[in-house]
Amino acid sequence: MKLIHGGDWAGFETEYGKTPLDFSANISPLGLPEGVRAAALRALEKADCYPDPLCRRLCAALAKYHGVPASNIVCGSGASDLIYRLCHTLKPKSAAVFVPGFAEYARALRETACSVTEIPLSADFRLTEEQLAQIPQDCELLFLCNPNNPTGLLTGRELLLPLLDLCSERGMILAADECFLDFCEDAADYSLVSVLAEYPELIVIRAFTKTYAMAGLRLGYVLCGSTALAEKLRACGQPWAVSVVAEEAGMEALCEENYVNQLHTLIKTERQRMKTALEALGMRVVPGEANFLLYRCADHRLAEKLRERGVLIRDCANFAGLEKGWYRTAVRTEAENIVLLETIREVLHG
Amino acid sequence: MKLIHGGDWAGFETEYGKTPLDFSANISPLGLPEGVRAAALRALEKADCYPDPLCRRLCAALAKYHGVPASNIVCGSGASDLIYRLCHTLKPKSAAVFVPGFAEYARALRETACSVTEIPLSADFRLTEEQLAQIPQDCELLFLCNPNNPTGLLTGRELLLPLLDLCSERGMILAADECFLDFCEDAADYSLVSVLAEYPELIVIRAFTKTYAMAGLRLGYVLCGSTALAEKLRACGQPWAVSVVAEEAGMEALCEENYVNQLHTLIKTERQRMKTALEALGMRVVPGEANFLLYRCADHRLAEKLRERGVLIRDCANFAGLEKGWYRTAVRTEAENIVLLETIREVLHG
Repeated sequence: MKLIHGGDWAGFETEYGKTPLDFSANISPLGLPEGVRAAALRALEKADCYPDPLCRRLCAALAKYHGVPASNIVCGSGASDLIYRLCHTLKPKSAAVFVPGFAEYARALRETACSVTEIPLSADFRLTEEQLAQIPQDCELLFLCNPNNPTGLLTGRELLLPLLDLCSERGMILAADECFLDFCEDAADYSLVSVLAEYPELIVIRAFTKTYAMAGLRLGYVLCGSTALAEKLRACGQPWAVSVVAEEAGMEALCEENYVNQLHTLIKTERQRMKTALEALGMRVVPGEANFLLYRCADHRLAEKLRERGVLIRDCANFAGLEKGWYRTAVRTEAENIVLLETIREVLHG
Repeated sequence: MKLIHGGDWAGFETEYGKTPLDFSANISPLGLPEGVRAAALRALEKADCYPDPLCRRLCAALAKYHGVPASNIVCGSGASDLIYRLCHTLKPKSAAVFVPGFAEYARALRETACSVTEIPLSADFRLTEEQLAQIPQDCELLFLCNPNNPTGLLTGRELLLPLLDLCSERGMILAADECFLDFCEDAADYSLVSVLAEYPELIVIRAFTKTYAMAGLRLGYVLCGSTALAEKLRACGQPWAVSVVAEEAGMEALCEENYVNQLHTLIKTERQRMKTALEALGMRVVPGEANFLLYRCADHRLAEKLRERGVLIRDCANFAGLEKGWYRTAVRTEAENIVLLETIREVLHG
């Protein structure tokens, strides 16, 4: 099996016998919050019990956190688990995604023998009315990542609300993936969670993975506009997707307000600094607003050369809609970012 | 969503505000092995990284443990995850299961719009040539649980090998679920792992869940007779099904020989003692050889009455092929088993 995503520290360790500096996965650089680590530790006491298939305690906590009924919330083993469950539940005949975008949407759709329309974003990677006009009439399920991965660009409500109206008209489900929205400023202005009650066709996908550096524990969830759809999703796939460790860690994570504030400040400062530095190194940097940056480099072997020096970035050549020379880099701590920038400088200019 | 399995300690805790004595899930009563707990703890240091989608280190360890090529091994988030992935990969049009049996086989098959033939076991719950004769000609995938859940009865090689020959003739996949085989005596005589190389149509399902009391961590795997099928399975579903905690814990579990020996001795002694005691209480007990016992009781409210007293057993009335009055009880430690038997006595005879 060819690995198509970033984050392959295990492959690097096997090859080089040491740990890489990993900018290829977009995870909070602050590490697992202390409280979450303690909760995970406590949960090991219950590791001999099956998890709660309904994640009743976590759903109750999420309901309180988001102001959404617990009956409309479904937890899974990471957002990607829920992307597959959604496709297996709906079994759409026709679906659409925007490219470049997260590859798992199309992979999951194709697993259910669905016809997938890939709608190219604009030349500057924006989602506009022109893209919306290309959604096929028979489309049953549309994935939209906000901010988009790998561009980091946000789509505003002036476009999202008309899109939701279109969904209502056509009975088309909109799966809005907000997994990286926690890293953006004014996230609440962009999130569709607040309009869930008005749109039964809306599903918002969220993850603990990135915000709380819990990628290794596997925890994500969806907030559904429709209770009926949430019930179908819950009944799809194995009953015990969320481990006892993940559920306990997730409940604690929701209390980590200070951690998230600190993360916001760090990402905002460092993203700007990195963008400027990458531009100074001759890259075309997309003005993304998430915890990663997409950029174009004249050197098509950049990722390879950095890897040889112990630094992983995401080569984006395998994203539909992108070609060789596009790279994605996570925004991490100041010290780590300096190492990345220095290593790029060394590779490009010796 | 209606919970159809045992192990709902969370529901009990919500209702009663205390922890039940749980005989409704069939998990090792010795708890998480100390070494496994330590490994899980160490793994939390890597909780901020994505898991290895290929589980390279665990597959290598399993390859050594079972003498099967790593390329033929696929890990998942519990055996149930792999049951669903198998169905989504093969998308059979026709499949068969034996009843009574583990409900997830049929649930997973029906998720892929498959026609499922339920073949009743014999009157004494045995799998015989008569049952094999009922496998539909067009059957593409057959699930067989050995020892069977909920009966605990074993099927010997004198029946399994002719069945495998039938699979070869017809190109039918046999998914042999050996999740409870570790609890049986002479397990190696019953396991099909040793004939994997001869049968590309064979898939053996295994779990860490029960043997090492790791149900809450979610870890299972399949050993495939065909490398090609293993590759397809690996490419199906989300890439990061196995958490970093589960992979690390699993690698350590494979070294826990003493734990498994101790478990064997305990289960053998206690199963016999419980069988005798249940019979003395007037039950018809199926002579199962796993870490649980299936029995019939004249009182159709037994599970309900035990629950009110803080003890959970599995009411088997919702198993296809069983009716009201059938119950399944895990074999646990001597002290716990005494409590169960005393509580049953109290319920039945006051």
